Amino acid sequence: MSVLVTDLLAGSQRALARLLTYIENEHPQAQAALAALYPHTGKAHLVGVTGAPGTGKSSLVNSLAKAYRAAGQTVGIIAVDPTSPFSGGAILGDRIRMRDLTGDRGVFIRSMATRGSLGGLARATGDAVRALDAAGFDVILIETVGAGQSEIDIARQAHTTLVVEAPGLGDEVQAIKAGILEIADVLVVNKADQPGVQSTVRALRTLLDLGSNRPPSGLHHGLPAQDSRQPAADHRPDEWQTPIVETVATEGRGIDVLQRAIQAHRAYLRESGQLRLRERQRQEIELQSRLQEVLFRQVAERIDPALWQAVLDQVAARELAPADAVERLLQTVGLAD
Amino acid sequence: MSVLVTDLLAGSQRALARLLTYIENEHPQAQAALAALYPHTGKAHLVGVTGAPGTGKSSLVNSLAKAYRAAGQTVGIIAVDPTSPFSGGAILGDRIRMRDLTGDRGVFIRSMATRGSLGGLARATGDAVRALDAAGFDVILIETVGAGQSEIDIARQAHTTLVVEAPGLGDEVQAIKAGILEIADVLVVNKADQPGVQSTVRALRTLLDLGSNRPPSGLHHGLPAQDSRQPAADHRPDEWQTPIVETVATEGRGIDVLQRAIQAHRAYLRESGQLRLRERQRQEIELQSRLQEVLFRQVAERIDPALWQAVLDQVAARELAPADAVERLLQTVGLAD
Repeated sequence: MSVLVTDLLAGSQRALARLLTYIENEHPQAQAALAALYPHTGKAHLVGVTGAPGTGKSSLVNSLAKAYRAAGQTVGIIAVDPTSPFSGGAILGDRIRMRDLTGDRGVFIRSMATRGSLGGLARATGDAVRALDAAGFDVILIETVGAGQSEIDIARQAHTTLVVEAPGLGDEVQAIKAGILEIADVLVVNKADQPGVQSTVRALRTLLDLGSNRPPSGLHHGLPAQDSRQPAADHRPDEWQTPIVETVATEGRGIDVLQRAIQAHRAYLRESGQLRLRERQRQEIELQSRLQEVLFRQVAERIDPALWQAVLDQVAARELAPADAVERLLQTVGLAD
Repeated sequence: MSVLVTDLLAGSQRALARLLTYIENEHPQAQAALAALYPHTGKAHLVGVTGAPGTGKSSLVNSLAKAYRAAGQTVGIIAVDPTSPFSGGAILGDRIRMRDLTGDRGVFIRSMATRGSLGGLARATGDAVRALDAAGFDVILIETVGAGQSEIDIARQAHTTLVVEAPGLGDEVQAIKAGILEIADVLVVNKADQPGVQSTVRALRTLLDLGSNRPPSGLHHGLPAQDSRQPAADHRPDEWQTPIVETVATEGRGIDVLQRAIQAHRAYLRESGQLRLRERQRQEIELQSRLQEVLFRQVAERIDPALWQAVLDQVAARELAPADAVERLLQTVGLAD
């Protein structure tokens, strides 16, 4: 076992930071270290935090981290910015956060920006979360900006996903919400001291009830939400009703309710067997994507570069369709159908 | 050649609509039809339109389409919504647009929503664009919501990418902008009749000049932008300076300037050789991703399902790291390193 791995397991934040840099740079040491750390993972509760710009996600993550620290739990924060190859946004968020949390050894904060490759950031984020998990953090908050497919892929790596909204966002934003409501385990309406909060909560409740993959609201129960009219006694461990929690993160208001909602979701995941099921799905998807990558690398090495260019020329000249080009390339390495 | 293909090439919008449905549903006929249509592609100018919610992208696409129609050109519109598995947003946008453009045979509009698979939407969008290209549309507008990685991947399929901004968006939005400025060939500040337009234009110009991949502003020239202080005589065909165009799409203001900017970018792409270069890069990426997919399908068929489950069990029990699991699976099909 490498010094990096033993240092990290012994609690060295320097070793952890170095491993995260290796992961970001796709350094060969990263995968070896992660394989050695793998038996030490699976203990942390992974909380995804996503939502549109302007909803106050960073303040919310900050407040949550402080609340967990006050309760004696250690917290890792991964701030992911899929939109910024410049990583300007991520760095900015980091600095603001650092002011509040710096100097506390029970908190570790890291920003990750996109490398431009499709799926590359989701993979790197998964590896980073695993490194923090092995390092022993109790709660890992994974914050993403925006609500595109890559953010959804990143949020799916969490056990509990918070979708953050704010009152008074426009109609176009409202339409977008529908897409991320599906992945929300807990809906947070932050900035709840601003006008329009009640109509936002009502609109979200309606959208939740419309969600095509869910049974009608009368048939499923879960955490008694702040706005819920379901009696708590109806609780069944195999169903989860997404609660809507109102917060004012900058003042710490509602953070205790949010913590209890996250706790209740974790209990639901355990009791219902969903925790194991979700982990297995995640692992299966990871195996598939790794298999795909390794396979491609091996076959790409066996394809003659001159042939690759010749085939590309024919595609460019519109003489050969891409699907037929792939078939021809695979024939030359004996792998065609 | 199938009836679908001959009908589509003869101008049948019904055949085109059917092919797009096949593409969305990954129907086997889609790939065969696209292969047959491939020699008829490569003529349309592909314009990507992306930007944050609330910037008025849909109105802009609408105005642009009407302006192209007035100039006698046919227009295809693909509206992509990567955030909405419900496709509520996409359908909404469609209806609004239909009011203005319906009944005109020179315009074809189609919305596409995500199927949830990573990269699946980008692929389907690429295929849809190819179908419209073969059907003979002069200009194809590809509109995406938001600014995540998947939107960037979709925008990269275009020849000319417009990034739409609006005055008065908050600081967090500002930070996000940096990420998509890199992909902008033309920056559009829409809603230019609203307060703050000049400070937005200044901020964007500063961000553009800071862009790390670009030479300092004094060294590169291109289209004389509305706010440019470069004399037009400095034009060199091998450099492009992203212009900033102010529009009020709802009133059609600035649309003529925007059309000229798109035209100038197309001329630049041709003269500089970038058009061929970009197409080749796109084709190479497409070949790689198709190759990866076919390879995985073939190898997955050769892996014993019982072994797959046994390996997954070991990963779930944290006895085997994912990287080692992949190695073991590849050994059984004789493909390990």
